[in-house]
Amino acid sequence: MYLEDLCKNAKKAKYEVAKLNSREKNSALRHIAKCLEEDASVILSANAIDLENGVKNNMNAGLLDRLKLTEERIQGMSEGIRQVANLEDPVGVLLSESKRPNGLELQKITVPMGVIGIIYESRPNVTADAFALCFKAGSAVILKGGKDAINSNIAIVKSISRGLEESGITKDAISLIEQTDREITTQFMKMKEYVDLLIPRGGAGLIRAVVENSLIPVIETGTGNCHIFVDESADFDEAVAIIFNAKTQRIGVCNACESLVIHEKIAKDFLPKLYAKLQEKDVEFRGDAITCEVLPEANEATEEDFYKEYLDYILSVKVVSGVDEAIDFINEHNTGHSDAILTENKENAEKFLKGVDSACVYVNASTRFTDGFEFGFGAEIGISTQKLHARGPMGLEQIVSYKYLIRGNGQIRG
Amino acid sequence: MYLEDLCKNAKKAKYEVAKLNSREKNSALRHIAKCLEEDASVILSANAIDLENGVKNNMNAGLLDRLKLTEERIQGMSEGIRQVANLEDPVGVLLSESKRPNGLELQKITVPMGVIGIIYESRPNVTADAFALCFKAGSAVILKGGKDAINSNIAIVKSISRGLEESGITKDAISLIEQTDREITTQFMKMKEYVDLLIPRGGAGLIRAVVENSLIPVIETGTGNCHIFVDESADFDEAVAIIFNAKTQRIGVCNACESLVIHEKIAKDFLPKLYAKLQEKDVEFRGDAITCEVLPEANEATEEDFYKEYLDYILSVKVVSGVDEAIDFINEHNTGHSDAILTENKENAEKFLKGVDSACVYVNASTRFTDGFEFGFGAEIGISTQKLHARGPMGLEQIVSYKYLIRGNGQIRG
Repeated sequence: MYLEDLCKNAKKAKYEVAKLNSREKNSALRHIAKCLEEDASVILSANAIDLENGVKNNMNAGLLDRLKLTEERIQGMSEGIRQVANLEDPVGVLLSESKRPNGLELQKITVPMGVIGIIYESRPNVTADAFALCFKAGSAVILKGGKDAINSNIAIVKSISRGLEESGITKDAISLIEQTDREITTQFMKMKEYVDLLIPRGGAGLIRAVVENSLIPVIETGTGNCHIFVDESADFDEAVAIIFNAKTQRIGVCNACESLVIHEKIAKDFLPKLYAKLQEKDVEFRGDAITCEVLPEANEATEEDFYKEYLDYILSVKVVSGVDEAIDFINEHNTGHSDAILTENKENAEKFLKGVDSACVYVNASTRFTDGFEFGFGAEIGISTQKLHARGPMGLEQIVSYKYLIRGNGQIRG
Repeated sequence: MYLEDLCKNAKKAKYEVAKLNSREKNSALRHIAKCLEEDASVILSANAIDLENGVKNNMNAGLLDRLKLTEERIQGMSEGIRQVANLEDPVGVLLSESKRPNGLELQKITVPMGVIGIIYESRPNVTADAFALCFKAGSAVILKGGKDAINSNIAIVKSISRGLEESGITKDAISLIEQTDREITTQFMKMKEYVDLLIPRGGAGLIRAVVENSLIPVIETGTGNCHIFVDESADFDEAVAIIFNAKTQRIGVCNACESLVIHEKIAKDFLPKLYAKLQEKDVEFRGDAITCEVLPEANEATEEDFYKEYLDYILSVKVVSGVDEAIDFINEHNTGHSDAILTENKENAEKFLKGVDSACVYVNASTRFTDGFEFGFGAEIGISTQKLHARGPMGLEQIVSYKYLIRGNGQIRG
């Protein structure tokens, strides 16, 4: 009952949010940004409880850091909301129009998605980010955050709700599912009647659970087994710099490089050079037989290694006979996120761009650029790894739908 | 194993189909159209077996008619394929491009979906239609047709496969799941690793089963509880003509009108007029209390009636206080397909267009126009009733995806 009521209220709220014009949405967002700053001490107290529980539950340092809020991070959340207020409104955009021979006037325009559900893990800043994007896109949002961040999330949502009400907007434009057991998450995924779109944000396990259980249409996000293929003609220095960046600049992100594919003719010369540079960060290489032969420091890779998103200082390495085998190997093992070729051969570059089946395919650049800000979309709600609806970084334009408006004067079908 | 092998082969084929250029695809389609005509007698013999089994199993006349092929209907299938050959290629279209401040060149282009699965019921012509659209859109297709049409489908697919091979293209561009039990359909819906998109075409029961069981992203199609709202200011004669058309021109289709919503101020004058006209087709009215009061011939509607897609000579009728209540009532009961307002009041028309949450919202026209040909898209693969990816009639443009191509010269992320 609790969950169904919450979803029903969100469905009611979606019609109200859909009616708001850009000015109303933007001024509410700016007011909410201010509310979060005003409520910083309350939010930090709530976050302190979550951190304390995290320590008690032996949470590791990385996760504790993701969970932790500071004055500065709250300031960052507010700043993010103000940036969303400054973006173009994605709703009401005329996509196309035509007049049919029978006189019907057809318009295709963007409309809000309706109710968007987001299921995510420990970072409490997602709460504010996801709300801002969904709200600007004219939708109501239902959030199901991680258990670890529940007190922080409750405090953040309370502050956002205050901002909404003070702006004369229903507080049901944002809802947080405050129960944190698994059962309620599974129930939430069945609420097809009320929720139009479900976006899971988190690790591969969460994404899989959502895909397997949801009756609501899902956009899969964020699992990235990203490959870099070093072609025979690659510039070695540039290649080392790009791979070093893609592998080590931030290891825990979905656009980091996890797998190296290399042309057999340069494996012997290139791999030791690369290995030497990557030892600055103690990166472990896990390679196939040829890799282990030319680079004795490499460990042997299992077949499983080539499917893995390590999110760690580990790189799998596969030697191939050329660009065709590289494309086949990548299409077999990647997650459809981001893959790159490093080459001075234009023909191979175009073959790779066309042949690799990923959201983002790069020539001579780091895979780390797959990101809403880097693509110029502004904030993003996630990076889609499926082909339906949206692919790659999803900004405001990717979380709206469209409808047809047809104006007639008595037309009937013959 | 049978099913997994079939899916694996389709996945291999998708890369081959994706590489074909427009000329190659179009010439193969035209050759296949000829093959079907040449193989007409074989297809008709197979169809005769299906019809015989249908009669044995007491299939009703309507279903037998949908199942039946004739020389003319096979000719129609071939003609449909030639029309698809004449449509613009939806693959490789540049959607946008930009140069980022760091020099990265970003292009967003359309790409094939990959492997598209279609699950459908008795009409064997869907076999040829669905193949032609998916193939033109650069994808391999896996078909799971109804048990009733299995012999016809096998013959049609055999003819298409011949056409593919004679055009030098892998016959795995089309696969038919020849087992017809339910278990294999359920297994098919789990083949997420090989199939990129699943489109069910058929009754509400089939669609529900697919949504509930599929791990593959689904586009829901075709359930239409379409409403027409007659506003206070509607032109009575025009309104009668539109409703007669929308309700009775073809009762078994998803864009037929199933539910009438009427302004309380005109119910008493309008309903008897409408009822008189609809008696030409013996349409039963099922109304709320006020309807039954002003139109004694109407039967009482249950709450369930207002959610029903009758596909029959039955119309539910609800009296409301005005456009606002009409919008709320429709959003509560419709299936997001097509809804219309009949009015001479421009303000109410705009309110209705904005407020009703459906793929197609009409002013002063029949809902029967929701159709790929009527919208000028050419053939359609179905009419989407969900908001993700595609909404309303889905032509070639709606069954492709996109990807980003990013060309750099050594960029790394700072």
